[in-house]
Amino acid sequence: MKTISVIGLGLIGGSFALALKKVGIAEKIIGVDKNVQHQIEAIELGIVDEVAELDKALSQSDLVVLAVPINSIQNVLPEILDQINDKTIVMDMGSTKAGICKKVLNHPKRTQFVATHPIAGTENSGPKAAFPELFLNKVAILCDVEESEKEAVKKVRKMYQSLWMNVKTMTSEAHDAHIAYVSHLSHITSFALGQTVLEEEKNEEAIFDMAGSGFESTVRLAKSSPDMWTPILIQNRENLLDAIDAYQTQISKIRKMIEEKNTEDIRQYLKNTNDIRRILNK
Amino acid sequence: MKTISVIGLGLIGGSFALALKKVGIAEKIIGVDKNVQHQIEAIELGIVDEVAELDKALSQSDLVVLAVPINSIQNVLPEILDQINDKTIVMDMGSTKAGICKKVLNHPKRTQFVATHPIAGTENSGPKAAFPELFLNKVAILCDVEESEKEAVKKVRKMYQSLWMNVKTMTSEAHDAHIAYVSHLSHITSFALGQTVLEEEKNEEAIFDMAGSGFESTVRLAKSSPDMWTPILIQNRENLLDAIDAYQTQISKIRKMIEEKNTEDIRQYLKNTNDIRRILNK
Repeated sequence: MKTISVIGLGLIGGSFALALKKVGIAEKIIGVDKNVQHQIEAIELGIVDEVAELDKALSQSDLVVLAVPINSIQNVLPEILDQINDKTIVMDMGSTKAGICKKVLNHPKRTQFVATHPIAGTENSGPKAAFPELFLNKVAILCDVEESEKEAVKKVRKMYQSLWMNVKTMTSEAHDAHIAYVSHLSHITSFALGQTVLEEEKNEEAIFDMAGSGFESTVRLAKSSPDMWTPILIQNRENLLDAIDAYQTQISKIRKMIEEKNTEDIRQYLKNTNDIRRILNK
Repeated sequence: MKTISVIGLGLIGGSFALALKKVGIAEKIIGVDKNVQHQIEAIELGIVDEVAELDKALSQSDLVVLAVPINSIQNVLPEILDQINDKTIVMDMGSTKAGICKKVLNHPKRTQFVATHPIAGTENSGPKAAFPELFLNKVAILCDVEESEKEAVKKVRKMYQSLWMNVKTMTSEAHDAHIAYVSHLSHITSFALGQTVLEEEKNEEAIFDMAGSGFESTVRLAKSSPDMWTPILIQNRENLLDAIDAYQTQISKIRKMIEEKNTEDIRQYLKNTNDIRRILNK
């Protein structure tokens, strides 16, 4: 790859650019971002070599990386495919995949596009939140790879691997169904917890003096960016409603056991759930 | 303090003993634990100077620290007060306070007891999980202090302060009401999330390959000890049912907005909840 353009210089795009630089993959990284403050910061922080308008960036790029919120990806991806030359590869890094893949399914340059989701992030956003190690040892999902040119998929896979990522493939539909449970749902549980405690704080200001590290960990994702997360929740609506219903069932189950003072069932429930250790240590 | 007995050599008791040693408060620390493996580990790890039976420990102690699950505290506290001499101070470190305080309200040696809750912990348990820095810069709550001798409260307060803790006082009722929201509820949301995803895993094994750091943070508390947490959930039942209801209301609110594809309301909700940053940085 000679020249890589990164569209969107926030946490994800910025970290990706920094990581590519670290492993020496790109000769030049061009940054594109509508937010002028982000442009300035990205240059100052050495995230990109230069910033440019989208058109200008596209004409020079061997690879175009879309790291903007998923509603923007959906809007801009067809136009980008229209504009690129026959050798340019386009990849996106959005957190939902089915809608994006559907949007360009019949685009004449569909094969030049690789749909991906690097499963990494923090609760922070913007160029200042970016750091090159974000993706280290994390999982990257490539979706609907049979719709892309083999060579394009190979290049994207290699690039993720060079960042020490574990690459997996699945359909975009399967991706969205699973990620609803292990990522999108935990954002919802965090936001709901945060809001519950903020409401309660209206009655009792001192409540936050009592918040320990457990609360902090559980509510961390409630700091996440509304611009990034609103379109994700809308986009993955069907899967998320299922996940929320399954979750509400569990909350209600625990509530009932507590209401009934059912010590033995509670103990068994907590013990069963401790099994999550096995899975997190995978 | 010459001799301090710590009853219960798990994460909390073990860490407290290590911290007391670190700051040189006790001349001798005696450990009491029914679990022989814990006794051995506590000696091997240098958590206590010796282990003893409860009776023997009580007869030698200037301070007795109860760091066992709260149901055990309730069972054993009256007997311990029966046995101690007039100068011994007893404190507990349980996560609920009203039930414990009620249990000994009319005990002739009530004034020798100080009810406390150091708000610190991890998802791990047992002596091996203990470390002296656990309490550093955390908050310790002293409850119903007017029921205790002033001198006893002063000593306990000083001891927590020497561990760099911020000491606050409140009634045991207020403690239990607030802690339901900022600690107990987040354990329930974590356990429910863990169980939801474990159930879903039955359909799709690969799901855990997709779990990122966000999920890990949100579900961390689901690793917590059932022995410790079952009695807490039962004990703080009334407050917890209120907190769960408030939480379910928030989950339902989010669910409805997603169902209705209400982009603007979702964005506003997430943005409002970002306010949790202000509070966590307090």
